[in-house]
Amino acid sequence: MGEFVVPIRPRFGEVDSMGVVYHAHYFVYFDVGRTEWMRAAGSPYAELERRGFRLAVVEADVRYLKPAHYDEDLRLAITLDVVRGASVAFSYELRGPAGVLATGRTRLGCLNHDNRPVRLPPDALAMLRRGIQAASRPSEIP
Amino acid sequence: MGEFVVPIRPRFGEVDSMGVVYHAHYFVYFDVGRTEWMRAAGSPYAELERRGFRLAVVEADVRYLKPAHYDEDLRLAITLDVVRGASVAFSYELRGPAGVLATGRTRLGCLNHDNRPVRLPPDALAMLRRGIQAASRPSEIP
Amino acid sequence: MGEFVVPIRPRFGEVDSMGVVYHAHYFVYFDVGRTEWMRAAGSPYAELERRGFRLAVVEADVRYLKPAHYDEDLRLAITLDVVRGASVAFSYELRGPAGVLATGRTRLGCLNHDNRPVRLPPDALAMLRRGIQAASRPSEIP
Amino acid sequence: MGEFVVPIRPRFGEVDSMGVVYHAHYFVYFDVGRTEWMRAAGSPYAELERRGFRLAVVEADVRYLKPAHYDEDLRLAITLDVVRGASVAFSYELRGPAGVLATGRTRLGCLNHDNRPVRLPPDALAMLRRGIQAASRPSEIP
Repeated sequence: MGEFVVPIRPRFGEVDSMGVVYHAHYFVYFDVGRTEWMRAAGSPYAELERRGFRLAVVEADVRYLKPAHYDEDLRLAITLDVVRGASVAFSYELRGPAGVLATGRTRLGCLNHDNRPVRLPPDALAMLRRGIQAASRPSEIP
Repeated sequence: MGEFVVPIRPRFGEVDSMGVVYHAHYFVYFDVGRTEWMRAAGSPYAELERRGFRLAVVEADVRYLKPAHYDEDLRLAITLDVVRGASVAFSYELRGPAGVLATGRTRLGCLNHDNRPVRLPPDALAMLRRGIQAASRPSEIP
Repeated sequence: MGEFVVPIRPRFGEVDSMGVVYHAHYFVYFDVGRTEWMRAAGSPYAELERRGFRLAVVEADVRYLKPAHYDEDLRLAITLDVVRGASVAFSYELRGPAGVLATGRTRLGCLNHDNRPVRLPPDALAMLRRGIQAASRPSEIP
Repeated sequence: MGEFVVPIRPRFGEVDSMGVVYHAHYFVYFDVGRTEWMRAAGSPYAELERRGFRLAVVEADVRYLKPAHYDEDLRLAITLDVVRGASVAFSYELRGPAGVLATGRTRLGCLNHDNRPVRLPPDALAMLRRGIQAASRPSEIP
C-alpha cells in the first residue's frame, strides 16, 4: 500500500501537565494505525482475532522529536517492513504542522488462543504481503 | 470491614494539562479500591474470575469536589453498600490533604463466561456479606 | 444542532479481559464527543483553553446497558442540555449495532487559569446557546 | 542506590482481551518506577516540577519476553544508567513469578517551563549522581 496514512487527533485526556501528549499514548496511536492498515489490506485484525489468532507486540521503540498537542490534526504514516510466517514488523512516523514529531517501530509475533507462537493463516499472510508490494501510490483513510 | 481505606498516588500520566487528575481516572481508582477490598474480604477478584465469574459495572457516578494532583498521597475510602444475589454496590470517597476530593458509587452485576447474569457463588456471597457486617473498626492497607 | 453524532471506534487497548470496552473509557468517548460538538458549534475547546478558560467535569454518571467491543463502528449522540453563565451540562447516548449501549451525563464548570470558577466568555456562551437552539436537523461528523 | 525495586500490581483496566497487560502500560510502570526512584534519591520529581524543571522522555524502548497478568505481584527493577547535565537514562526490568517479563530503557531530557532544553539544577544533579554511586545494597520500596 506504499505509504499509508491515518489521521490522529490527540484527545484531551492524552495530554499531560506539560501540555503535550504523554509518551505512552504514542504506542496506542501506532496500534490504531495497525488496525486501519490491516483493515485497508483486507485482513482486519478483529477478524483474525475471531479466527483464534493474535498479534502480540514483542518489541517496541520510539524516538520523540517534537511535542504533539491536544486536538491537533496529525498524520500517522505506517509501513509494514517485514512479514515472516509468525511475525510482522511495522514502522511509524507521526507528523504534525511542525514536521515529524516522532518515529517508532514495533515487532509483533503471532499467537494462538493459548498464547503459543504459530504461523499466520495463509490468506492473511498473502494479504499482508500484497499490502507491502502495492507500494506504488500513497493512500489515506478519509 | 467498616471503613476500608486504600492509598492512591496519582501517576504522572493521569494528570491533564490543567495539572489535575483527569476525571476518567477516578473510576480506575475505584476499581483499584474494589480489588483491594475483595482481597481483604477473602474473596480476591482474580480468583472469582478464574472460577468463571465476573463483576461488570452497570452504573457509575462521581462528584468532583476538589482537584487531585500528581504524586499526592491520597486515601480512597470504600464501602460495600449492598450485596444481592447477582449484584453488589460500592460507594467511594477520595480524600487528600484538602479534605474530600470526590465521592462516587458503582453498581456491578455478576456475569458468567458468556456474559449472562448469574448469582455469585455462595462462598463469595458469604465473604462479601461478612465484609459488610464487620463494620466495626477501620482497617487500612499498609 | 439538534442531535449531534460522533463516530467512535473502540481501540484494542480500551477493551478489557472480558472482551468488552472497560467502563472508564466511556468518559473518554464522552470527552471526544464534547470536543467535536464544540468545534461544530464554532467554539473549539482548544481555542477556549488558549484564551484562559477551562471546562472541568464536576459531575458524571453513566449507565451501561450492553457491551461495546473492539473496532465496532459506534455512534455517540451528544446533546447540550443546559448552558448557564459558568456551567454546561451534556447528555450522551452510545449506540451500536445492538441498539443503545450506554447513556450518560456530565456537568462541567468553567474555570480560569487559577482554577477559580468564572463565567464563560460572552461569545462562547452565545455560540453554545445557538448550538442548543439549532435543534432542527441531525448532523453527523463524517 | 544499586538495584532499586518498586512493586507493580497490574490493574484490571490495564489488561487487554488476551488477558495480559497491554503493551503501552509498561511505559506507565516505568514512569511509576522513576517517580519512586527520584523520591528515594532525595529529589522527588514533583518538587523538580514545582521549581520549573521537567524531564521529557526523548527515547523509549521495551522488549516483551513473557506476559504480565491482572493483580500479579510484580517487581520493577530500575537503574539510573547515565546522568549528563541535561539528560538522564534509566533501564528497567519487570519481574514476575515466571522470571523476567520485560526489559526497557528510556532517555529523558531536562526542559524548562518553555519546553527548552536546560541543565538540571546542581543539587538535583548531585542527588541523582549519588543515587548512581550508592550502588552497593539493594533497596526496596515497602
